[in-house]
Amino acid sequence: MDKISGKVTTDTISFAEFKNHDGEIVSIRGYVHRIREMTGFSFVIIRTARDTVQCVYAPEFSDYRWDEKICEEACVKVTGKVVSSKDAKGNDRYELQIHNVEILSLPADRLPIVINKKQLDNIGLSTVLDLRPVSMRNPKERAIFKLQEGIARGFREYLMKEGFTEIRSPKIVFAGAEGGTNIFKLDYFGKQVYLAQSPQLYKQALVGVYERVFEIAPVFRAEHHDTSRHLNEYTSMDFEMGFINGFEDIMNTEVGVLKYIMNLLKTEYKEEVELLHADIPEINEVPVMKFMDAKELLMTKFKYKPQDMKDFDPAEEELLGKYAKKELGSDFIFITHYPSKKRPFYTKDDPNDHEYTLSFDLLFRGMEITSGGQRINDYHEQVEKMVKLGMDPEQFDTYLMLHKYGAPPHGGLGIGLERLTMHMLGAKNVREATMFPRDINRVTP
Amino acid sequence: MDKISGKVTTDTISFAEFKNHDGEIVSIRGYVHRIREMTGFSFVIIRTARDTVQCVYAPEFSDYRWDEKICEEACVKVTGKVVSSKDAKGNDRYELQIHNVEILSLPADRLPIVINKKQLDNIGLSTVLDLRPVSMRNPKERAIFKLQEGIARGFREYLMKEGFTEIRSPKIVFAGAEGGTNIFKLDYFGKQVYLAQSPQLYKQALVGVYERVFEIAPVFRAEHHDTSRHLNEYTSMDFEMGFINGFEDIMNTEVGVLKYIMNLLKTEYKEEVELLHADIPEINEVPVMKFMDAKELLMTKFKYKPQDMKDFDPAEEELLGKYAKKELGSDFIFITHYPSKKRPFYTKDDPNDHEYTLSFDLLFRGMEITSGGQRINDYHEQVEKMVKLGMDPEQFDTYLMLHKYGAPPHGGLGIGLERLTMHMLGAKNVREATMFPRDINRVTP
Repeated sequence: MDKISGKVTTDTISFAEFKNHDGEIVSIRGYVHRIREMTGFSFVIIRTARDTVQCVYAPEFSDYRWDEKICEEACVKVTGKVVSSKDAKGNDRYELQIHNVEILSLPADRLPIVINKKQLDNIGLSTVLDLRPVSMRNPKERAIFKLQEGIARGFREYLMKEGFTEIRSPKIVFAGAEGGTNIFKLDYFGKQVYLAQSPQLYKQALVGVYERVFEIAPVFRAEHHDTSRHLNEYTSMDFEMGFINGFEDIMNTEVGVLKYIMNLLKTEYKEEVELLHADIPEINEVPVMKFMDAKELLMTKFKYKPQDMKDFDPAEEELLGKYAKKELGSDFIFITHYPSKKRPFYTKDDPNDHEYTLSFDLLFRGMEITSGGQRINDYHEQVEKMVKLGMDPEQFDTYLMLHKYGAPPHGGLGIGLERLTMHMLGAKNVREATMFPRDINRVTP
Repeated sequence: MDKISGKVTTDTISFAEFKNHDGEIVSIRGYVHRIREMTGFSFVIIRTARDTVQCVYAPEFSDYRWDEKICEEACVKVTGKVVSSKDAKGNDRYELQIHNVEILSLPADRLPIVINKKQLDNIGLSTVLDLRPVSMRNPKERAIFKLQEGIARGFREYLMKEGFTEIRSPKIVFAGAEGGTNIFKLDYFGKQVYLAQSPQLYKQALVGVYERVFEIAPVFRAEHHDTSRHLNEYTSMDFEMGFINGFEDIMNTEVGVLKYIMNLLKTEYKEEVELLHADIPEINEVPVMKFMDAKELLMTKFKYKPQDMKDFDPAEEELLGKYAKKELGSDFIFITHYPSKKRPFYTKDDPNDHEYTLSFDLLFRGMEITSGGQRINDYHEQVEKMVKLGMDPEQFDTYLMLHKYGAPPHGGLGIGLERLTMHMLGAKNVREATMFPRDINRVTP
C-alpha cells in the first residue's frame, strides 16, 4: 500500500443490481436478518444497507457445508446465483441460491427483542427507544429515518436550486431568541449562556449578507412537560428570504419546498414509502384563509365556541383541517394574519390593521407544522415594538445591527423535521419519528 | 389572495443572466454597496445575493432624478439597460445604465466600518468578529462562507452518491465520547448531562442499521486555552462505513470525497475561489507512510530530534508536508499505524503488531485535517481493551449494544469544516473561517 487513489473496490453488489445479473454468480454483504429452516432447504434473509434479500440454502446447490456458527445478526458475505423467485412479488424480484457464505463477524449474544418480523410487535415505545441501536435494525423502523433523510434532503435541494445559501449558526448563544422559560442554561467558564432555541436572529442577520439563507440543525427547548408532541432537542428546518414583495413569497416558497419533497419521496424513497404505508400528500394549490375568517367559520359552520380569540386550540385546527380536505380538496391550509399579541417581537404588523400581523401558520391534516411570516425590517419600527413590549433594545444591539445598517423587506419560517415526519406517517408520538429523543425523562441512549 | 401555487414571481434578474439580456431593459435588486461620484455621472455598485454589479447613473440616460436619500446600504430595485462595459474585465462583463431606482428600505445609521473596499483593511480580527452581521457584507468575507458551504455540500453529495445515509445524532448526551476535561456539562432538570464532543458512538451504532452513515453537525469542546486553531463549537463532518475490507477503504473514501469537493469548488464556486485567491489543491493519488517510517525519515533525512515517539508535534507535521510536496508531488499525505497509546479506546490494533493501530491522520500542506481509522467490532475485544485502559464497560452498555449484537468490520473519520476552510484559504486563525466563533473569551454575537 503506497498510494490511495480514491476508489473503494468491492466484489459485492446491491440488490438493485440483481436484475442486471440474472443467472449469474454474484456476492452480497450484510447481516443475517432471519433464518427459516424448511424441509430440505433454508431461507436465509440478508439485511443489506437498504434492502432485505431472500437467499436459499440447499445442499444440492453447492459443495459448501452450512457453518452452524452462522446465526441471526452475523455479518456475512454471501455468494450465489441470482434467480427469479416464484414466491416474491413483482417482476423484478430475485433471490440468491447460496453457493458460499463467508462469516465476517459474529454477535456475542442473542438480540433482546425480535427485530426480524415485519414490524416490532408488542414492544412498548419506551423499550424501542431504550434499545434504539438494535430496534432500528428492524426494516420498518430504519425506513422511518431514511424517509426523514429524504424530507431534509428535499428541503435543502429545493432551496439551493432557488439561490439560498446554507448557513451554520452557533448553538451556544448569549441570548435567547424566543424568550420564555424553556431555555437551557449553560455554565460557560463562569458565564451564563444558553442553548439556541432557534437560529432566528442569525438567519435574519445573514439575509443582509446572502439575501436568502437556510439551515437544518438542532435546536433546544427545555420543555418541562412530557407530551406526545414536544421534544427537548429537535431538528429545525429554517429559511429566511430577503427582498420579498410580500409575505406571500414566503408561503409560495414553502409550497414549492413541500411539492419538491413529496415528489422526491415518491421517487427516490419509494421503497420506504411503501414499506411504511406513508400517505404522501398531493399538493397542487394551497388554500389561504385569514385568522378571523377562520374563527368566524368555526363559530358559524361548526358551531364551535372558541376559548381564545387570539389563537387556535388543537380542536379548532383539526376542524379547519377537515374543512380544507372536504370543501377545498387540500391536505394543507394556510391561516394568515394572526393577532399581534400572539406573535414574536420581530413579526411585522399588518400596515392596514396593527392588531394583526403579516404572519401565517401552515396546517397539515389539521395540525400546525409551520409558523412563519414577514419580519420588521425598519430599525425605528423594531425598536418601538420592543419598547412597547417592555423589552430593552440595548440588550439586542447585535440583533439590531441588521436593522440599523439596512435590511431589505424579509421573512421566513421554521419546520420541525420530526413533527413533519410524524404527521406524514400518521404516528401518534413524535418520539416514533425521532432517532434519539430527549425529553424531561429521557436523555439516553 | 386565495390560493398559493408554489411559485415566487419576480421581475428582477441575477447578474449571471445579464449576458442573455444585452441591450435590454432589466431590473435587479440588492444593497447599494458603493457610490462613486465622477464628473457628470456616478458609479453605483449594487451588491446582490452573490455578485456586485456596476451600475452607472447619468442624467442623460433617463428622466429619473437621483433621490438624495439613496445611500450606501440602502436596499433598492434598479431598472436600466444592460450594456457591455469597457472598464470591466472579461468578455461577459456587463454594466447597467440606470433608468430608475426604487428604494425598498433605508439604513438608520452609517456603517461603523468600511465594507465596500476589496477587503476589510486595517480592521482587527476581533472587530471583524464583533461586527459579523455587517463585516460579512464585505464581498470577500462572505465569499469565505459561501466556499465553506461548497465544502460541506461536496462532502454530502459525494457520500450520498456512494450510498451513505445522513443521520442526526443528539447533541445533548448522557456520556462523553472522547472523554477528557474539555466537555461542557449541562444541568438537565437536575441531572448532569453533556454537550456532544463528537457523534462517534451514534455513528458506530448506526453502521449496524444503514451500513454507511454520515453527519455534518456542530460538536462542542470546552477548550480552556485560546489558540488560533481551537474552537469551542465547530462543525464536524463525520462518516462511518461498515463491511470494509480494511482501513484503506476509509482512506479511499476520504480521497474520493476530497477530489469531489475540490472539483465542485472549481466549478460551482469559481467566483469565490477567484475572489479569495483560494489555492484549491490538485489531487491524484495520495501517498501513504507508516508512522514509524515517518519518524525515521524525520530523524535521518531532516535530522529532527523528536520529543515524543508516540505522536507528531506541529514542526514534524510541517516537515512531512514539505516532503510530500517536494518529493512526492502531493499536497496531502496519509500517516498510518499510529501507536495504540495515543488513539481512542475504540481504535482497532494492528493484528500484526498490537503496539500500533489501524488508524491514520491526513496531513494537508503539513497540517492534520483528519483522524480516522478502523474500529474494534468484536464485543470481547472491545471489552478487553476498555478494561485494560481502566474503563468500566458497564458505563458503556448502550455503546456496546453494537458489538454485543453484531457489528461488521467498520471504521470512519471526522473532518473539521472550519479548519479545512482555513487551510484552503491559507488563513492564520481558524476564526477567520468561522461565522460566529465561540472560544473561552467569546460567545457573541
